[in-house]
Amino acid sequence: MTKRIITISRQFGAGGRTLGKLLSDKLQVPFYDSEIIEHAVAETGFSPEFVREAGEYASTTHSFLFNLALSHSVSAGPGEMSNYDKIYVAQARIIRDLAEKSPCVIVGRCADYILRERDDVFSVFIHADDAFRAKHVLEIYGEVEGKTIEERLEEKDKKRSLYYRHYTDREWGDLQNYDLTFNSAKIPVEMACEWIAQAVSG
Amino acid sequence: MTKRIITISRQFGAGGRTLGKLLSDKLQVPFYDSEIIEHAVAETGFSPEFVREAGEYASTTHSFLFNLALSHSVSAGPGEMSNYDKIYVAQARIIRDLAEKSPCVIVGRCADYILRERDDVFSVFIHADDAFRAKHVLEIYGEVEGKTIEERLEEKDKKRSLYYRHYTDREWGDLQNYDLTFNSAKIPVEMACEWIAQAVSG
Repeated sequence: MTKRIITISRQFGAGGRTLGKLLSDKLQVPFYDSEIIEHAVAETGFSPEFVREAGEYASTTHSFLFNLALSHSVSAGPGEMSNYDKIYVAQARIIRDLAEKSPCVIVGRCADYILRERDDVFSVFIHADDAFRAKHVLEIYGEVEGKTIEERLEEKDKKRSLYYRHYTDREWGDLQNYDLTFNSAKIPVEMACEWIAQAVSG
Repeated sequence: MTKRIITISRQFGAGGRTLGKLLSDKLQVPFYDSEIIEHAVAETGFSPEFVREAGEYASTTHSFLFNLALSHSVSAGPGEMSNYDKIYVAQARIIRDLAEKSPCVIVGRCADYILRERDDVFSVFIHADDAFRAKHVLEIYGEVEGKTIEERLEEKDKKRSLYYRHYTDREWGDLQNYDLTFNSAKIPVEMACEWIAQAVSG
């Protein structure tokens, strides 16, 4: 395949994980979702719980300068980083290593940005309207006491958006950052999976 | 086909017009580009030259309130509208009439927004990096004295973006407004044409 790495960014409940699994099966390449990356980062010494929260939902307000130290190693100036930044640096390194190792599908965690300088990456964003996502989230995760489904959708996307903007200085959902974006309420993920397989093999 | 109308928004030089023609041929439905809409609007009494410029590139700063008067007729309160607003109202009415008449492909002119309440619209945005678009624009339109190709790309997209934001109160290029967006430097328009035909027929 021409494009070795597929990154998937997604609104909560739009079907990003399902698409990732379908593509992984179709193309016979590994699939790395947030949990797998969290697990890898946890090996650096942070608790899995902290990594889960901090690694995609941190919305801290400190400067972007630490990005300068990201190139290849977590060892550059870690003394001045917050734990949030350390998690970001560790997961960026892990994502780069995974991409280097073999063709794969990676969901979430700013992978599109982290791998932006590779010329073998195909980046996808999947979204849908609230009604479609609400139904999907309730089917998969069920109800959460004390929160409406609308609040859950908004909260999760808001956090992802803030996190993405904080660490990438780009807007989450700016279509220019993606090779393909689609509305899963109108285009079934199975159909999009076929399209993406065709595009990366072309 | 389930989705009768396809709207195409596009960065300058990304291939939106080519895609529109391909889809029109493939689906055997009429193709309306900016020139055709300009021509129709000009029948309301404005000069074709003014319509061409004002109908997609006006970046005036007046209020959005006139949108309230848009529903079906240009006759609602035209006395208080600028000529820019009159052009917008006229072309919105023409686009709604075209969409009502038969399945079709419409390029540009905020058609995605104007037809947003129909449930039979499939909206597409096509974009590409500057290098790809520069090559494409020079091939089709040639050089323009006194302006670099980079200036031409930036100027045209900036105007389209301001115009869209002004008349729709949405961001041009916010992927949530489109069912499908794609990078034509990575996905050939011929491939995307096949996908879109599949999606609207599904």
